[in-house]
Amino acid sequence: MEFTVYLAGQIHDNWREELKRKAKDKGLPLNFVGPQENHDQSDSIGEDILGKQPNQLYRDDTASSINNLRTQLLMEKSDLVIALFGDQYRQWNTAMDAGMAIAYQKPLIIIRPESLIHPLKELSNRANVTVETVDQALDAIAYIFR
Amino acid sequence: MEFTVYLAGQIHDNWREELKRKAKDKGLPLNFVGPQENHDQSDSIGEDILGKQPNQLYRDDTASSINNLRTQLLMEKSDLVIALFGDQYRQWNTAMDAGMAIAYQKPLIIIRPESLIHPLKELSNRANVTVETVDQALDAIAYIFR
Amino acid sequence: MEFTVYLAGQIHDNWREELKRKAKDKGLPLNFVGPQENHDQSDSIGEDILGKQPNQLYRDDTASSINNLRTQLLMEKSDLVIALFGDQYRQWNTAMDAGMAIAYQKPLIIIRPESLIHPLKELSNRANVTVETVDQALDAIAYIFR
Amino acid sequence: MEFTVYLAGQIHDNWREELKRKAKDKGLPLNFVGPQENHDQSDSIGEDILGKQPNQLYRDDTASSINNLRTQLLMEKSDLVIALFGDQYRQWNTAMDAGMAIAYQKPLIIIRPESLIHPLKELSNRANVTVETVDQALDAIAYIFR
Amino acid sequence: MEFTVYLAGQIHDNWREELKRKAKDKGLPLNFVGPQENHDQSDSIGEDILGKQPNQLYRDDTASSINNLRTQLLMEKSDLVIALFGDQYRQWNTAMDAGMAIAYQKPLIIIRPESLIHPLKELSNRANVTVETVDQALDAIAYIFR
Amino acid sequence: MEFTVYLAGQIHDNWREELKRKAKDKGLPLNFVGPQENHDQSDSIGEDILGKQPNQLYRDDTASSINNLRTQLLMEKSDLVIALFGDQYRQWNTAMDAGMAIAYQKPLIIIRPESLIHPLKELSNRANVTVETVDQALDAIAYIFR
Amino acid sequence: MEFTVYLAGQIHDNWREELKRKAKDKGLPLNFVGPQENHDQSDSIGEDILGKQPNQLYRDDTASSINNLRTQLLMEKSDLVIALFGDQYRQWNTAMDAGMAIAYQKPLIIIRPESLIHPLKELSNRANVTVETVDQALDAIAYIFR
Amino acid sequence: MEFTVYLAGQIHDNWREELKRKAKDKGLPLNFVGPQENHDQSDSIGEDILGKQPNQLYRDDTASSINNLRTQLLMEKSDLVIALFGDQYRQWNTAMDAGMAIAYQKPLIIIRPESLIHPLKELSNRANVTVETVDQALDAIAYIFR
Repeated sequence: MEFTVYLAGQIHDNWREELKRKAKDKGLPLNFVGPQENHDQSDSIGEDILGKQPNQLYRDDTASSINNLRTQLLMEKSDLVIALFGDQYRQWNTAMDAGMAIAYQKPLIIIRPESLIHPLKELSNRANVTVETVDQALDAIAYIFR
Repeated sequence: MEFTVYLAGQIHDNWREELKRKAKDKGLPLNFVGPQENHDQSDSIGEDILGKQPNQLYRDDTASSINNLRTQLLMEKSDLVIALFGDQYRQWNTAMDAGMAIAYQKPLIIIRPESLIHPLKELSNRANVTVETVDQALDAIAYIFR
Repeated sequence: MEFTVYLAGQIHDNWREELKRKAKDKGLPLNFVGPQENHDQSDSIGEDILGKQPNQLYRDDTASSINNLRTQLLMEKSDLVIALFGDQYRQWNTAMDAGMAIAYQKPLIIIRPESLIHPLKELSNRANVTVETVDQALDAIAYIFR
Repeated sequence: MEFTVYLAGQIHDNWREELKRKAKDKGLPLNFVGPQENHDQSDSIGEDILGKQPNQLYRDDTASSINNLRTQLLMEKSDLVIALFGDQYRQWNTAMDAGMAIAYQKPLIIIRPESLIHPLKELSNRANVTVETVDQALDAIAYIFR
Repeated sequence: MEFTVYLAGQIHDNWREELKRKAKDKGLPLNFVGPQENHDQSDSIGEDILGKQPNQLYRDDTASSINNLRTQLLMEKSDLVIALFGDQYRQWNTAMDAGMAIAYQKPLIIIRPESLIHPLKELSNRANVTVETVDQALDAIAYIFR
Repeated sequence: MEFTVYLAGQIHDNWREELKRKAKDKGLPLNFVGPQENHDQSDSIGEDILGKQPNQLYRDDTASSINNLRTQLLMEKSDLVIALFGDQYRQWNTAMDAGMAIAYQKPLIIIRPESLIHPLKELSNRANVTVETVDQALDAIAYIFR
Repeated sequence: MEFTVYLAGQIHDNWREELKRKAKDKGLPLNFVGPQENHDQSDSIGEDILGKQPNQLYRDDTASSINNLRTQLLMEKSDLVIALFGDQYRQWNTAMDAGMAIAYQKPLIIIRPESLIHPLKELSNRANVTVETVDQALDAIAYIFR
Repeated sequence: MEFTVYLAGQIHDNWREELKRKAKDKGLPLNFVGPQENHDQSDSIGEDILGKQPNQLYRDDTASSINNLRTQLLMEKSDLVIALFGDQYRQWNTAMDAGMAIAYQKPLIIIRPESLIHPLKELSNRANVTVETVDQALDAIAYIFR
């Protein structure tokens, strides 16, 4: 039995690569999907496809419409969602993704540093599990296969 | 026909009071519900009910469990959700509430300043309507009754 | 027992007024809701609330976002949907509303002239009842109360 | 990961063939399904199976019942819906299909010429993405795999 | 707290009147809805509204489309379904109504004579309660209020 | 693309074998599932597993509980339901299965002789397609693959 | 705004009366529903309505069918579920009711003594809030109105 | 066609091994999933991943959060649930799992000794089938393949 895992969260560092590599090292039968990780492309994809927009608002709106198409399709295909929050970014789309996972009753693991306990407390309480590191998230998934 | 509106968002200023007053001035038949607006109570409600917790993590987790009970019940009762984002706070639970409203196909209006266009772009794209002021949000609702 | 009826369809003549008057004459305990019937307002509501848009596309998109907010809320509140199609307009949003009513398993009555039998055949087949006149639609509803 | 795409829209030209060929050229792992593209067969299938019907209305209704059987099954199997609207036809069943995709929260891309911005504005606003060409629709899907 | 009860079943005798009278005698706060009990009207309603149909098949189909509109709306409004089966009629629409109540997880009581134990065994097993008399059905409902 | 088809209906003759053979002859990529076709086993399966029951009612109820377990699992796995009604049997469980397929929005084809038009009219109206022969049902399915 | 609360749990002492009285003292606008609290009646209701059953198994099964009818209807009508577990009884139906509330996403409060922390840990983790006393449960509800 | 079966129930003896072996002996095409069967690991998994917790309550809560993650994912993947109850343990999480299976309309078989007829009567009444032995449960499943 293989699971598909949606990796929600910021796209400013390589946490997904680290997580995928560690999952492979542990031999976990997981497929990973997630948002566009090329930040520039994620911002420009609307104009890349639909052409120059009249202002920043509509540049952003067309980009997000294509990002949301991607997320909606891939999250529907996923068995589990991991949402990572970091100190630096506001990541409201990550919190939206997490809220949607909760509403659809998809299992949800949150990764966040200790410093974010307070601002994430309602999200953590509704998630299945909240951890601080990628390794802990993978340990929780590894437990499903044991 | 009266509607119940859930007012998601930060609880650090009196935007809800302003919105309720203006709705009343416009004669809109709306009932408003929302999170606990007393910030201290919102943080302490877990310990107020369940007693002193062993650390900050569990103080926060018990508080959020009761805040989530409230939100889950009141949002289920609501016909429409307004989520306000401001510059100052991270408001991840607001984004979670908005994500859940989207997943449940509840109509959603987002209020946010122009400065937040970019970080909220995916949420705005999935909301029904995104505006910048309380007045605009009420105008959108007033239109339903016209 | 009173029912709420959503009246989907074109807003270029006064068929809704005729239907409401006839329902009243028949003593049917119905509340009617529907889209904005002031055509100019329906087209300008986006700019009325959100201000001048940079082009026609976005003028239309902001208007439709507020029209959809209205429809989503009022259709959710409705027990029954009547969708009227006429010869003159393309009324794709009417067909979309009808498709959504079918998907949500809300009872649906279609009113269309004989000349539209062929282009509406798939929609008619999925609706509960297809009739040619407002009177026939009300007769079908009156039957529920007999 | 392969996706199945339902191609809703008119069946009077070969836009589906063009789209399938271009998808293949781009190496996109997509399976395509859609309505019966043989227009005569789509109109006669009711009588082909159930025999001569007493009039045009019932000829159309039996044909549409079998077309709807096909659509209902294939759309349920699909991960994504593309709906193409052209200038020439009323395509109300396309708008119905799009409405059902929205209600089922299936990702939806609309292709329509610039001339149809206004009459399709409510549908476009509810779709994930609206584009003008087959190439743009495929670019949006290609982005999901990048 | 009042409940609405849908009374599915044959319309050839006055079992519904008996049930309503007895419910009133017991003081049960119930509203009753159900199919058209005038058998001739139930068969002719299609032609009454839509005009003479070309044959018996379509006379029946138009009648049933309006009967199903009624049932769909009233069953949605109901808190509980009672389905009565008798020895004389095939009542397949009653069994369909019961199947739909089961699928929607609406509470279901079946009334049937002892002679029908065998042919109704799968339906009885899926219903909440199966009884032999109207009095027993009302006793089961009365228990909810005690 | 292969579909799984649930064959609801009486188990007193070999219509399922005929249908499966003809489907194979037509090269349709279909898997068939359905109820237990050994009538004695279908009636005795409760006592076969749970031992002698105290009376006929409970003999039937235990048998039906295991028949319903089977149907619930296999219908959930099915993409399409065919329900066959014949003149001889009351087949209320077939009508229940059909009602559940309708409620779950699973495509439904009914096969019934002309003589049953009237008693099955409400079911036929809610099914996608109603035909008179196994060949016609397969023709309707074959059309999905063309 | 008034809420309806389903009080799941053992029926061997008067905890519901205590809770109702305290809710009234606190002025909480709550309606309470729940299982039959007369233990003998709860056990005999099957035979009371359906007559003497052939053995204890079927005596219990008929009683539970009517208890489940009651629970299914009243829980559907409820906005919130409170489930109380005590040391003495196994209360598996209480745990089933709680599991169903979780699956239906109905807010759930568990009341249990400290001694049951371990055996109830999975249920508590999925409930919104777990408390030890009736007063604490009411405090959590009172917070919704503040 | 292969089915996945979730084996809910106590983890203190080797009933799952017996059941899996017997299923294999019978040649049933079943995959089995279930909770963590290593009891110590099931109790310590929270602290194993998240570190020492401040007290027994939170040790248990973190463990159960990871157990529930596992159950939620695996039950979603299952076609059928078997829940075994024994005399010795309270197994409230088993009853919760069973309640959730009922709410999700997943087929459910309960295995329990005769001595538990009374306390499990409401759960048994809602399950599809209740048996006393592992062999009987497998016989009921084997019947699906015959």
